Amino acid sequence: MRNFTMLTDLYQFTMMQGFYLLEKDSQETVFDRFYRINPCNGGYSLIAGLEQVINYLENINFSDEDIKYLRSLNLFQEEFLEYLKGFTFTGDLWAMPEGTVAFPGEPLLRIKTKRNEALLIETALSMFLNHESLIATRASRMRWAAGKDFLMEFGLRRAQGADASVYGARAAIIGGFDATSNVLAGQMFDIKVVGTTAHSWVMSFDDELTAFREYARYYPNNIILLADTYDTLNSGVPNAIKLFTELREQNKLGENCKYGIRLDSGDLAYLSKQARKMLDAAGFPQASITASNDLDENLVAELKIQGAKIDSWGIGTKLITSDGCSSFGGVYKMSAEIKDENVIPKIKRSNNVEKITNPGIKNVLRFYDKEYHKIIADIVILEGEENDYNKDIILRDQEHPWQKMTLKENTYIKRNLLEPIFKNGKCVYNKPTLKEIKTYAESELSTLWEEYRRLVNPQTMKVNLSDNLYKLKNDLLFIAENS
Amino acid sequence: MRNFTMLTDLYQFTMMQGFYLLEKDSQETVFDRFYRINPCNGGYSLIAGLEQVINYLENINFSDEDIKYLRSLNLFQEEFLEYLKGFTFTGDLWAMPEGTVAFPGEPLLRIKTKRNEALLIETALSMFLNHESLIATRASRMRWAAGKDFLMEFGLRRAQGADASVYGARAAIIGGFDATSNVLAGQMFDIKVVGTTAHSWVMSFDDELTAFREYARYYPNNIILLADTYDTLNSGVPNAIKLFTELREQNKLGENCKYGIRLDSGDLAYLSKQARKMLDAAGFPQASITASNDLDENLVAELKIQGAKIDSWGIGTKLITSDGCSSFGGVYKMSAEIKDENVIPKIKRSNNVEKITNPGIKNVLRFYDKEYHKIIADIVILEGEENDYNKDIILRDQEHPWQKMTLKENTYIKRNLLEPIFKNGKCVYNKPTLKEIKTYAESELSTLWEEYRRLVNPQTMKVNLSDNLYKLKNDLLFIAENS
Repeated sequence: MRNFTMLTDLYQFTMMQGFYLLEKDSQETVFDRFYRINPCNGGYSLIAGLEQVINYLENINFSDEDIKYLRSLNLFQEEFLEYLKGFTFTGDLWAMPEGTVAFPGEPLLRIKTKRNEALLIETALSMFLNHESLIATRASRMRWAAGKDFLMEFGLRRAQGADASVYGARAAIIGGFDATSNVLAGQMFDIKVVGTTAHSWVMSFDDELTAFREYARYYPNNIILLADTYDTLNSGVPNAIKLFTELREQNKLGENCKYGIRLDSGDLAYLSKQARKMLDAAGFPQASITASNDLDENLVAELKIQGAKIDSWGIGTKLITSDGCSSFGGVYKMSAEIKDENVIPKIKRSNNVEKITNPGIKNVLRFYDKEYHKIIADIVILEGEENDYNKDIILRDQEHPWQKMTLKENTYIKRNLLEPIFKNGKCVYNKPTLKEIKTYAESELSTLWEEYRRLVNPQTMKVNLSDNLYKLKNDLLFIAENS
Repeated sequence: MRNFTMLTDLYQFTMMQGFYLLEKDSQETVFDRFYRINPCNGGYSLIAGLEQVINYLENINFSDEDIKYLRSLNLFQEEFLEYLKGFTFTGDLWAMPEGTVAFPGEPLLRIKTKRNEALLIETALSMFLNHESLIATRASRMRWAAGKDFLMEFGLRRAQGADASVYGARAAIIGGFDATSNVLAGQMFDIKVVGTTAHSWVMSFDDELTAFREYARYYPNNIILLADTYDTLNSGVPNAIKLFTELREQNKLGENCKYGIRLDSGDLAYLSKQARKMLDAAGFPQASITASNDLDENLVAELKIQGAKIDSWGIGTKLITSDGCSSFGGVYKMSAEIKDENVIPKIKRSNNVEKITNPGIKNVLRFYDKEYHKIIADIVILEGEENDYNKDIILRDQEHPWQKMTLKENTYIKRNLLEPIFKNGKCVYNKPTLKEIKTYAESELSTLWEEYRRLVNPQTMKVNLSDNLYKLKNDLLFIAENS
C-alpha cells in the first residue's frame, strides 16, 4: 500500500504546528465536503474515490525520511516533529458510498476529529474524491449517450499520470463503462481488459489481408480488425470481409467468436454506415463495428442521431482527462467545533456569496417518490433532525420562499445519505467490490428522471436546507455582520 | 522505484504474442513520437517527462504476479509468458531534452529496438511525456502572463490523482513556476515549498486579528495573511495593517521578513488595488499581495491590464489539470523497419490527411538567427542529411512551394535537437537536475520571438521536411495508392 502522508499542502503543516504550540491541535472539529456546480453543467454528480480515501487514512504515518525532510525546511520545531512521529488518523468519518448520485450544496462527506488530523488529510482526501468523482460522473454521461452499447476506456496514453490512468479506469467502470484497455488497472481492480490491434500490426506485414489473417489465427474468438490503416472502405473493410468469408467457410465463426472491425479515423457516421452495408451484404450482420478517435458523450449522441452503425465505443482522452471540465470542485470546510460536548457551529463568510458555507453538523435526507422510486428532493438537515421528517413535509426554497412543495405522508421514501466509514480511527465500513459499486451506481442513476440526465441544460435538483439550518446560517451571518 | 511494466494497453500484449509466435518479435523497428497541434492553440510546446521515461525503461520487468495475472486472461500461451519473464528494454532512444521548445510535426523522440519492446513501451512512454509536456507548456504560458511575479503551484487538491499532482508540480517548475504547495513534490524533486494559511486557521480563533497575531508569532519571517475569511476590505486588510503596525513598532519587520496578504475570493483587480492603497497609506509599500482563486494565464494577463496590484500568484486547478486543454496529443508511430542493415521506411496512410505519418529514420535540425539567437525554422531531415545543411539554405514549404526563404551562410546557427538517451538498453544520458532543466527551459523559451509566445493567435513556426524526406513520403503514398 502506498503511503501518501506527505501528499498535502505545506500550509497544513504550518497551521498544524501553530495549533500544536497553542495546544489547540486536539480540539474536536467538524469539517464537511461539498461542491457548488455539477461537472459539465450536468444535472448531478456520481461520487467515487472513497476506497482510496480509506486506504490513505489507514496508512497515515510519517517515516524517518519524512521527518528529516520537514526538518530541512527550517520551519518546524523539534517538539512538533516529535509529535508527528506518532501521528495517525483517530477520528470519525461519514460519507456517501461510491456510486451515489449527489447534488450541489449538500455534504458528501463529514469528518469529526482532532483539528490537526482534519488539516493534514484535507488535501489528499479532497484530491482522491475530486478526481474519481469527476471521471465517474463523466463516464455516466457517456453511458447515457451510448445506451446499451459496449463502452471501453482507452485513455491511458493521454492520462495525466499513472494514477490518473488506473483510478480513472476504475471510476469509468463505476460510471458505466464495461472494460478498459489498461492492463495495470485490470490487474489492480479486476476490471475486464480489452484490445484490438494498432496500425503498426497492419504495417508490420506485407499486406493488410495477411495482417488480418495472422491476427485471427492467434485470437480466433475475438477478431476485431483495425480497418483504417490504408483506406477504410477500399481496403480495410473488403479485406475484413474476405477474411470473415474464409473463416465462415472453415466454420470458424462460431457462437463464441466475436468479430468485426474498428474505425479510428475519418467520418465515423459515414464510414460506419457504409461498412455496415458492406458487412450485411456479405452476410455478416453479426459483425460488430467499434469506433474510436476523440469521442465524447456529445459526439456519441450526435453520431447516433445521424444513424451511425456503431455498437461498441472506445473512448480515451476525453474521458480519462474529462476534457472540457477537467476538475470536480469539491471543497472541504470547517463547520463546527465541539467544546465540552457542545457544538459550536462555524461559518465562512465571503465576498462571493456563493462561497458562504453551511454551519453545524449536518446530514442529508433524500426523498424518493414511492411509486417510481425517483428522487424528488434532498434536504440538508442538522444532526438529530432526521425524525422531524416523517409525516407531511413542506419543501421550501428558502431563497425564494414562495416556491414550496408538499410531500404527502406515505407517498415518499426517505433515506439518510451519509454512512459511517470510520469510528475512532478504525474503518467500520464493509468495502464493497468494484462490481457491487457498479451495480449500486446503476441503481442510483436509475433514480434520476431523464430530465436530470440530459447532457445539455438538464433540470436542477432541489437541495433545500432544513428550517433550523437556514435559521442558524442566517443568525451566524448577522452576528458576524454586527460584531 | 515504481515498476510500470504492466502499465500498457492490452493490445500491446496481444500483438506482442502474435509477433513472438510469428518470430517477428525481434525485428529491429523504428518508431517516432510527434504531435499535431500545439497545446492551447499556442505557438509551441515545452517538452517534459523524459526523466520518468528513463526510470520506467530501466525498471521494466515482469514479476511472478504479473505473469500470473496475464495467464488468468486466457489469451496467452505458456511459451509467450515464459519469454516475458526475461523481458527488458535493450534498444536505442534519442529524444529532445526536457525543457526543449518544440513544434508540431517534428520528431520529439525516436526509438530503435526490437519490435516487441517498442510495442510494450508505447503506452506508458507516451503517457509520461504527454502529461508532463502538457503541464510544462501550460506553466510557461502562465509565466509569460505573469512576467517576473512570483508563481506558486497550488493544484494538489484538484489534480487527477497523486501522480498528476507531483509530476505536474515538477513540470510546472520546468515551465517557469517558482514553488509549489505540494510537500511530497517538494520532497521528491527538491522544489521550494510554500504556503500561507487556510480559512480554517482564521475561523479557529475568536477573532481575525488574534488569528493573524498567532500566525506571525510562529512564522515571523513569512507573514502572508489570508484576508478574505470575513470581509477583505473591512476586516482582513485593516487587521493585517494593525498587525504589521504592531510588528513594525517592535522592529520585527526586518529585511528577511516577507509579509503581506493573500486574496482568495471577490474581484481580484478591485480588491488588490484597494488593498494596495490601504497598505501603502499605512506605510507598508513592501507588503506583498498574493492572489489565488481559479486563475489561468488569460485571467492573469487581464488582471494585469486592469492594473491589479498583485505580485505573487497561486495557480491551482487550471494549471494542474490544464483546464480547457487537458491533453497533449503526442502520438507514436512506426516509421521504419531495419532488414539486413537496410532501412525500409514505413508510412501510415489515413482517411484524415493530417494523420498521414512521415516515414524513415529522422532527425530535426533547428536554425537560429546568429545575431538574436531566435529560432528561424526547424527542418525534419532523414538521418545522414545533417551535413547537407551548411551553406546557403533554401527553406521551402513543400505544400505551398512558392513560399520559400533563404538562410545565408554565416547568418545562422544550426543544432540537432534529438540527443542519445539509451544505447543498447543502457542509459547514456547524463540526467540534469531539475534546476538545470528549469534554466535550460528558460533559455529555450528565450529563443522564441514574442510573436510565438503570444497567448492568443500566435505566429506559426515553420517546420519543413527536407527535400529527400518529402520525396520519400510522396513516393510511398503513390506506391500505396497504386498497389
